[in-house]
Amino acid sequence: MYLHVGIIGANGYSGIELIRHIQQHPNVTLNLIVSNSTSGKLITELYPHLQNIYEEQLQTLDVESIADQVDLLFFATPSRVSKDWIPAFMEKGIKCIDLSGDFRLKSAADYQKWYKAEHTNGAYLQEAAYGLCEVFAEDIAQSKLIANPGCYPTAALLALIPMVEQKLVSTNSIIIDGKSGASGAGRNPSLATHFGEINENVKAYKLGQHQHIPEIEQVLSEVNGEPVQVTFSTHLIPMTRGILCTIYLDLLEEKTTADILSVYENYYEGAPFVRVRPEGTWPATKEVYGSNFCDIGVLVDERTGKLTVVSVIDNVVKGASGQAIQNMNLLCGWDIQTGLNQIPVYP
Amino acid sequence: MYLHVGIIGANGYSGIELIRHIQQHPNVTLNLIVSNSTSGKLITELYPHLQNIYEEQLQTLDVESIADQVDLLFFATPSRVSKDWIPAFMEKGIKCIDLSGDFRLKSAADYQKWYKAEHTNGAYLQEAAYGLCEVFAEDIAQSKLIANPGCYPTAALLALIPMVEQKLVSTNSIIIDGKSGASGAGRNPSLATHFGEINENVKAYKLGQHQHIPEIEQVLSEVNGEPVQVTFSTHLIPMTRGILCTIYLDLLEEKTTADILSVYENYYEGAPFVRVRPEGTWPATKEVYGSNFCDIGVLVDERTGKLTVVSVIDNVVKGASGQAIQNMNLLCGWDIQTGLNQIPVYP
Amino acid sequence: MYLHVGIIGANGYSGIELIRHIQQHPNVTLNLIVSNSTSGKLITELYPHLQNIYEEQLQTLDVESIADQVDLLFFATPSRVSKDWIPAFMEKGIKCIDLSGDFRLKSAADYQKWYKAEHTNGAYLQEAAYGLCEVFAEDIAQSKLIANPGCYPTAALLALIPMVEQKLVSTNSIIIDGKSGASGAGRNPSLATHFGEINENVKAYKLGQHQHIPEIEQVLSEVNGEPVQVTFSTHLIPMTRGILCTIYLDLLEEKTTADILSVYENYYEGAPFVRVRPEGTWPATKEVYGSNFCDIGVLVDERTGKLTVVSVIDNVVKGASGQAIQNMNLLCGWDIQTGLNQIPVYP
Amino acid sequence: MYLHVGIIGANGYSGIELIRHIQQHPNVTLNLIVSNSTSGKLITELYPHLQNIYEEQLQTLDVESIADQVDLLFFATPSRVSKDWIPAFMEKGIKCIDLSGDFRLKSAADYQKWYKAEHTNGAYLQEAAYGLCEVFAEDIAQSKLIANPGCYPTAALLALIPMVEQKLVSTNSIIIDGKSGASGAGRNPSLATHFGEINENVKAYKLGQHQHIPEIEQVLSEVNGEPVQVTFSTHLIPMTRGILCTIYLDLLEEKTTADILSVYENYYEGAPFVRVRPEGTWPATKEVYGSNFCDIGVLVDERTGKLTVVSVIDNVVKGASGQAIQNMNLLCGWDIQTGLNQIPVYP
Repeated sequence: MYLHVGIIGANGYSGIELIRHIQQHPNVTLNLIVSNSTSGKLITELYPHLQNIYEEQLQTLDVESIADQVDLLFFATPSRVSKDWIPAFMEKGIKCIDLSGDFRLKSAADYQKWYKAEHTNGAYLQEAAYGLCEVFAEDIAQSKLIANPGCYPTAALLALIPMVEQKLVSTNSIIIDGKSGASGAGRNPSLATHFGEINENVKAYKLGQHQHIPEIEQVLSEVNGEPVQVTFSTHLIPMTRGILCTIYLDLLEEKTTADILSVYENYYEGAPFVRVRPEGTWPATKEVYGSNFCDIGVLVDERTGKLTVVSVIDNVVKGASGQAIQNMNLLCGWDIQTGLNQIPVYP
Repeated sequence: MYLHVGIIGANGYSGIELIRHIQQHPNVTLNLIVSNSTSGKLITELYPHLQNIYEEQLQTLDVESIADQVDLLFFATPSRVSKDWIPAFMEKGIKCIDLSGDFRLKSAADYQKWYKAEHTNGAYLQEAAYGLCEVFAEDIAQSKLIANPGCYPTAALLALIPMVEQKLVSTNSIIIDGKSGASGAGRNPSLATHFGEINENVKAYKLGQHQHIPEIEQVLSEVNGEPVQVTFSTHLIPMTRGILCTIYLDLLEEKTTADILSVYENYYEGAPFVRVRPEGTWPATKEVYGSNFCDIGVLVDERTGKLTVVSVIDNVVKGASGQAIQNMNLLCGWDIQTGLNQIPVYP
Repeated sequence: MYLHVGIIGANGYSGIELIRHIQQHPNVTLNLIVSNSTSGKLITELYPHLQNIYEEQLQTLDVESIADQVDLLFFATPSRVSKDWIPAFMEKGIKCIDLSGDFRLKSAADYQKWYKAEHTNGAYLQEAAYGLCEVFAEDIAQSKLIANPGCYPTAALLALIPMVEQKLVSTNSIIIDGKSGASGAGRNPSLATHFGEINENVKAYKLGQHQHIPEIEQVLSEVNGEPVQVTFSTHLIPMTRGILCTIYLDLLEEKTTADILSVYENYYEGAPFVRVRPEGTWPATKEVYGSNFCDIGVLVDERTGKLTVVSVIDNVVKGASGQAIQNMNLLCGWDIQTGLNQIPVYP
Repeated sequence: MYLHVGIIGANGYSGIELIRHIQQHPNVTLNLIVSNSTSGKLITELYPHLQNIYEEQLQTLDVESIADQVDLLFFATPSRVSKDWIPAFMEKGIKCIDLSGDFRLKSAADYQKWYKAEHTNGAYLQEAAYGLCEVFAEDIAQSKLIANPGCYPTAALLALIPMVEQKLVSTNSIIIDGKSGASGAGRNPSLATHFGEINENVKAYKLGQHQHIPEIEQVLSEVNGEPVQVTFSTHLIPMTRGILCTIYLDLLEEKTTADILSVYENYYEGAPFVRVRPEGTWPATKEVYGSNFCDIGVLVDERTGKLTVVSVIDNVVKGASGQAIQNMNLLCGWDIQTGLNQIPVYP
């Protein structure tokens, strides 16, 4: 199988990272890049680093002409855009992988509550597979619409699901303390991502209001078999790439760090992108920089019995574009690592 | 009253920050600066930014000659140094403010466990006042030996004590997620603070092993009247100055964010260095940069009932040298703000 | 003498830095802060770090009402604003210190060429004193309108003038390589100052087109007695504060580093804010962070005979608001250091 | 042809970057990694980001056993090491690519002057090809010992050689203003690369004394046919990767920017790793991040006639390990891009 693909919203950071990965993928040609706000420009005018590598012109979003040119579309658009376009493409038989939050929640009411917009195509919410590759591979392989997970949910869920699924932890005291680099906010300038405001600074933001809360809870509830609520805090860190989640859990029965590590190792056996760290060590975001890895470290504190789990990803790769490629690989029955063998850039 | 003071360990970041503050203090003269490892050098050889401001020579640590020249000494030495020197100075009537961890724990056994060294002068542990100025002002005013709090404990305790003292939260599920800039590790080069390892990186470190754990627990237990254990995690952030603690608490009865804010406002009425932030806003470390403030923000999540408290300080000022000056002011009966009116440097 | 002052454009980084310095100035009260774009808001809504320090409301720019309340106005507005307002205030007897570029060039034609706007009040260009305090103190003391120098010109001219004035260097081969932190571009969000674009990045910008070129050349030409052209390049560095200029000069006769250093030392004798560094050492921007210093280092390369001069400032202080305070001190006949004794914040 | 290679000094940043590139090279197996200071450890103990990717043990430097296992060795050792080891390997028929400065200078006297060490194997200095791939490809292809260029010289020479070779610029007024990230100083901790000293800071260093001066001059003199001296300044920038050189040149006859651009385009036609930027744009280091590109921008200032050239590289890739792989490709007659198709990681 060989695919012709397109990127809607190619002018953002996730879009550009899709280009990087698609260029290194042997089974795919990038046939078109689309951005209504910058259509007509060469991508190299916006991103000179692509000179000599990929120099195409950005197109406008026209369903008819696009549908003729591609087998699959990546939507790297901001929230509240893809919901109005994906159905039209699906009706024409185009597979869609949506990197935005528009098809992640199963309930249109939840969508409205957390994304502050009506979901006019709510019926499609049920069709979308949630693209957390290591957990829902079978669903993904059979779907035509994949909701690529959010960056924080990817890091949090990969750390939480083995514990929740195996009923090892209390599900009413889960605390997730997330720290993210600024690229997660995209390329659109704002005071919140102005250099002078981010550099030499750490701040909490959106506490209790982050749209990734219902996404995390929906997946954990499904895995758990009954509703789960989490406390989830997000912090902006003076760096470009990377998310680290520190997760605090109450064990339901006494376990050692080694016990818990072996649960993770078993759960992620055969999952090449999840690396469980040896006892006594902790992952750092730089150790997955530019790559599709999610690294996990664990401690059962002997004094308190509390379980702490730390997970890290590159938010633009495993938290967005890399995972989208991984989803495409699943969808096409290709080796999951195809085009994703980038080694972390260190230092 | 007018004091002549000295700094032992003046060649580190806390030492240099003491010089900055003492130079702006109207009632104090800095009579001598001491560093065994760099004695004989001018401080400007190590810190050229002090040219034209303070250009003295570093001395060796000699009890006899130093005791003749000062009324009070600041120890800005690494852990495991001041315990062997402070008693000799106290016997000569010199007041001591210790910025290291050597006199913070009341139990010599705890000290040995967490600092991996025997405390040969354990008797002095009982004499030391714990210098958290906003909470223990009376003790401090009457003491001759002050254990200046650790940087993380300062940020964590100022956020926790109003809740614990007033029995508003469960004391067996306290979680403190700390994030710190790299200056907290001092000026001594190591791989852990090498630029290439810190920049564009976030990492967890010392989980379950940080020597600030027993310090926080000791103070909370005292305030609570019975033992408190905490879960405390620390993370290194790619910035120089600043600590942010995100604290997760279970309320013992239903409260709103406004209720909790008014508890903090009442508790810190008359405490000029603690600023409680308006509902819906969160503090950022840059907003206290270079100043002695501790800023606190609060949320009671309506969905989960969980209380989240965020506190920020400049670890080198309120978390070290600024608080040491504040302790000196208390000790001398001066206005607590004397020499500490630095406005945060923003941006 | 005691002044009541106001700040027009108080919502920008220079405005906020003026507030920091005025709050520490014993002879001045800040009577009003003005910003048309954010009028009606409390300054603490925009800058929470000012809580408990300065919490006033931003006003609209109304000449009549403002003129009644102040003796002197600081204009911390973007280019192309103050030229339309300052004349009205001057006619009412209000002294003005303009931090923008609107009154720095003597020629309205030059202004039009470099600032891309007509200078409708060109007559005032002749009245304005160029506020480079260490060089033009007499002019400044007698003026009612002071054009506060640009950030790059401050760093470049303090390094160049002693050499040019004393005819030690060729004036047709001056090269200035400038490096600046991002705060120089102000607080208005744009792609050019978006965190993801600045962090882990160095770029050249505006080569051959920077509006500081004519400013530097005008002053050097005046000092030289005949026209001087310079090659001036600017680079954006991933930091918030600081400018470093590396200047390359051809000596007209053979000199040693020591010879040149003594020229600088003599020139800046009695100038407390210019610090000449000892032979063999170079200044760093962090060594003047948050302070009004300009530090200068010098090398005559024995191999090539070339003279290299390096100067550093904090662009927001000596390159903007600190120098504006210094100009106010000159204007009022106060000690030049009044309110400007901030010690560099290190690290 | 298929090679078995080894890395001496694999525990440094250049060594680790060699591993990243070799892992992506189809014609090469990395048979051994060597480091005397850390032998016996797994590379993943030092660099956890290599978990699941490359997990071998570091060996000691033993000529006999190593020579049996490899066809070619990369020396990623600090200066003053490889000179004492490379001859022994060459005598055993092992090809060597030296990333250090030990075989770059042709004169043992120059080496002694700039590297402060005697070159006991000076005879080999003549045998070594200078590995600037775009310029000396023929020499490289026929050599058994390649001196991989320094990071600054790579950026400076690729920008300078087309101008000097074609006699377009004066060779007695060349000025190179270099700015580098901190990774160029390696992974060995020191005060100079301590996070608190680099972050939010720019400083000049080693002016007139940098060991890359004779390297640049030697190559330019060879290209020019007669001796060239340059003024070369280096600055440390608060970022990890990237070098930007701003080069100031006097044109020998009048040219436009377009004229000069076409000289570069012609010179680098067929050189896939050098990208000449369109008129009016300037390269940024982030635009080559993690890749083997060198990007060049040019301006002839119409006012002054001065030519300014800006070049950027990733110092760890094109300035070290990537260029070493490129040299191996030349040596083996492989396509020069083999294993080097990494797209810049942006943002």
